[in-house]
Amino acid sequence: MVPHLVTALTGPLLDLEEKIIAATPAIERWFRLEWQEHTPPFYASVDLRNAGYKLAPVDANLFPGGFHYLANEMLPLSVQAAMAAIDKYCPDARNLLLIPEIKPRHPTYFQGVARLMQIFRQTGLNVRFGSLDPSVTQPTPLALPDGNMLVVEPLVRSPNGRRLGLKDFDPCTILLNNDLSAGIPDILTNLHEQSLLPPLHAGWAIRRKSNHFNAYDEVAKKFGKLIGVDPWMVNPFHAKCGAVDLTTGEGQESLAASVDAVLAKIRKKYKEYGIKEKPFVIIKPDAGTYGKGVITIRDAAELKELSEEQRKRMTVIKDGKAVTDLNIQEGVPTFESIKEAFAEPVVYMIDRYVVGGFYRVHGEKGPDQNLNAPGSQFVPLAFAQQHAVPDVKAKPGTAAPNRFYVYGVVARLALLAASLEMERTDPDPEVY
Amino acid sequence: MVPHLVTALTGPLLDLEEKIIAATPAIERWFRLEWQEHTPPFYASVDLRNAGYKLAPVDANLFPGGFHYLANEMLPLSVQAAMAAIDKYCPDARNLLLIPEIKPRHPTYFQGVARLMQIFRQTGLNVRFGSLDPSVTQPTPLALPDGNMLVVEPLVRSPNGRRLGLKDFDPCTILLNNDLSAGIPDILTNLHEQSLLPPLHAGWAIRRKSNHFNAYDEVAKKFGKLIGVDPWMVNPFHAKCGAVDLTTGEGQESLAASVDAVLAKIRKKYKEYGIKEKPFVIIKPDAGTYGKGVITIRDAAELKELSEEQRKRMTVIKDGKAVTDLNIQEGVPTFESIKEAFAEPVVYMIDRYVVGGFYRVHGEKGPDQNLNAPGSQFVPLAFAQQHAVPDVKAKPGTAAPNRFYVYGVVARLALLAASLEMERTDPDPEVY
Repeated sequence: MVPHLVTALTGPLLDLEEKIIAATPAIERWFRLEWQEHTPPFYASVDLRNAGYKLAPVDANLFPGGFHYLANEMLPLSVQAAMAAIDKYCPDARNLLLIPEIKPRHPTYFQGVARLMQIFRQTGLNVRFGSLDPSVTQPTPLALPDGNMLVVEPLVRSPNGRRLGLKDFDPCTILLNNDLSAGIPDILTNLHEQSLLPPLHAGWAIRRKSNHFNAYDEVAKKFGKLIGVDPWMVNPFHAKCGAVDLTTGEGQESLAASVDAVLAKIRKKYKEYGIKEKPFVIIKPDAGTYGKGVITIRDAAELKELSEEQRKRMTVIKDGKAVTDLNIQEGVPTFESIKEAFAEPVVYMIDRYVVGGFYRVHGEKGPDQNLNAPGSQFVPLAFAQQHAVPDVKAKPGTAAPNRFYVYGVVARLALLAASLEMERTDPDPEVY
Repeated sequence: MVPHLVTALTGPLLDLEEKIIAATPAIERWFRLEWQEHTPPFYASVDLRNAGYKLAPVDANLFPGGFHYLANEMLPLSVQAAMAAIDKYCPDARNLLLIPEIKPRHPTYFQGVARLMQIFRQTGLNVRFGSLDPSVTQPTPLALPDGNMLVVEPLVRSPNGRRLGLKDFDPCTILLNNDLSAGIPDILTNLHEQSLLPPLHAGWAIRRKSNHFNAYDEVAKKFGKLIGVDPWMVNPFHAKCGAVDLTTGEGQESLAASVDAVLAKIRKKYKEYGIKEKPFVIIKPDAGTYGKGVITIRDAAELKELSEEQRKRMTVIKDGKAVTDLNIQEGVPTFESIKEAFAEPVVYMIDRYVVGGFYRVHGEKGPDQNLNAPGSQFVPLAFAQQHAVPDVKAKPGTAAPNRFYVYGVVARLALLAASLEMERTDPDPEVY
């Protein structure tokens, strides 16, 4: 269970790591001040890529599954953070309604939902599960991989229509663990008396990656200034390309131009820092992916050579939503591997607190590919790796806790960006 | 490092344990609501005694030393809790001034102070140490047992007299880790622009155990009602006896009467629950002890047979403060032992969060004696024992995490009592 980091990291990341650890009090104070101005998402997970020469978030998930992959022993951190979060939204809360995915993308998904129940029970909440699946018309038990089970129940609006709950269960807080890729169901709209967390516009029915990346640009810039590093060290270049349909070829030229532009920017940075890698970009839909419809491109010419299968995959996204806007993101190769499989760290946060993480590992993918794909496995960051307290005297690149602290800092940069993103995209901003 | 609990607990505690674990959501919600009304102490440690048939706090320390005895691995819990605490008092804080003991009672005391520095650094604070020792007239390095060192510096009032700091160091928050047994130094008075934590009246110059025990009576009563148990299961009987000087014999008769009264109450409870133990009481000064001046009495007649040495010890307390008021507390025997030495759990809290604990172990003391005495040792509660998430399905009395969760609940009852105590004894209540 203890990931062995086979990569020997050298060069600028060590410099970045050193600077982050030396600046710990300044960084933590800066976060403290930022969280006075901005409300962190209720919970989030952030995928990081550690290239050795740079360390950057590549995705921020506001409906994190996979809490069961966090090391058991670190559960108290989640409980403590959840206490702080609940205090903020509904300090009197007695009941929490959790709305999970209907058709989970991962076979152990509901195990993570059960873990969330365990966490929130410890904060003093009765937790029950409501289903968005119209075929769930009565309490329905679901068997869990560990032999336990949980029961999902039909959602019910109160007689006056103002509240959402279950039969004989009136929650103060409704926690979504469903990213709403399929659109916003009517039953979730016009709820004004209860806290719906995260808010509806955090779901992929409304959310756009480009808004997140734009907010992250600002955060990375501030952070770079704070600790005296090039923001690029924590931030991949990105560009958005609208109205693309690869099955018809519509917008393909404009996409190729964007790809070329991003590759050129990367090449310049690689030259500046003497990095010998071959630049590449990741193209993904602007409206959420689940790891589908993500491709790696090293040259704009490759776009013409995409197979029909690949074009289709870039077009048909979850629940049949067609791609129109694409994001071109600088590819950050992962230099971390576990037993010869490439790995990327995923960091979990509740409120503004880092509560754990794991490595996503894929045996059949390369260092320049998306690892969030069928066949990926999860290795919990074991205890010694996981605790967030850096050893200021450890030599950079050697101490696992130091690395995890640094991961926690960069993940929180993405968390802060998500907070800005949510503020700016809020359709009903006066409630903030 | 993993304490092996050799006692086989039976009877009512298992019942108490079961009830506490089953009522987890109700208990946690109750705490959540109480903390909306009452501000928890900044930090605290609580000594518990587990008698098998009852589990009760016997002491609540508002200037906890010994943070270095908490398992290293659980440090992130302290950091997270400290973040929440700092946010409450001084969210903009950049500098923290920590004022430790002058002549520590324990040889490794400053190691715990260094640990506090590490914790607060992680919350985004620059930490420096100010000394109340008038002989410290310049920055003075102190060697730590682990080979590191820390520097204590002379305290300085600002030119206008309104602030306290060090040379070139103006803190927003001043954290006392000195219990002020020797009285309140002038340099700490009339500070209105900075947060002084805990407040001066938490120090033994002003604080009285009887106020704490009285507040605890109320808390235990509420808690007993909440989960449906006799509050006595978590609360020792106690009585206060004023104006006693055992060296002269003054007040000794009144003390004997109080001892008899408490013993009679215990006897009645023992009969009610079929407990075969021999009742005893612990007599301790009302104004703080450091474990000095604490005696075990099984019969009021023993008071007449105290040696001159014992009488002296009951009279001369730390820094020469003479005893006048004594507390008679129901003795709760400890049924826990580690390698044949009797042990009692000590639970640490920052703000309202349990952040860890250890066993205080004494090889030369009996199950009915005060273990907080020279010669005591400390066994960190190792990881598996320490995490605060109970397993609802584990058989009571078998699961170490369950036991620790229960310890955390009872310790927080004492924390809540300390909060009420501080409110009620505040000489300057309008600042709350």
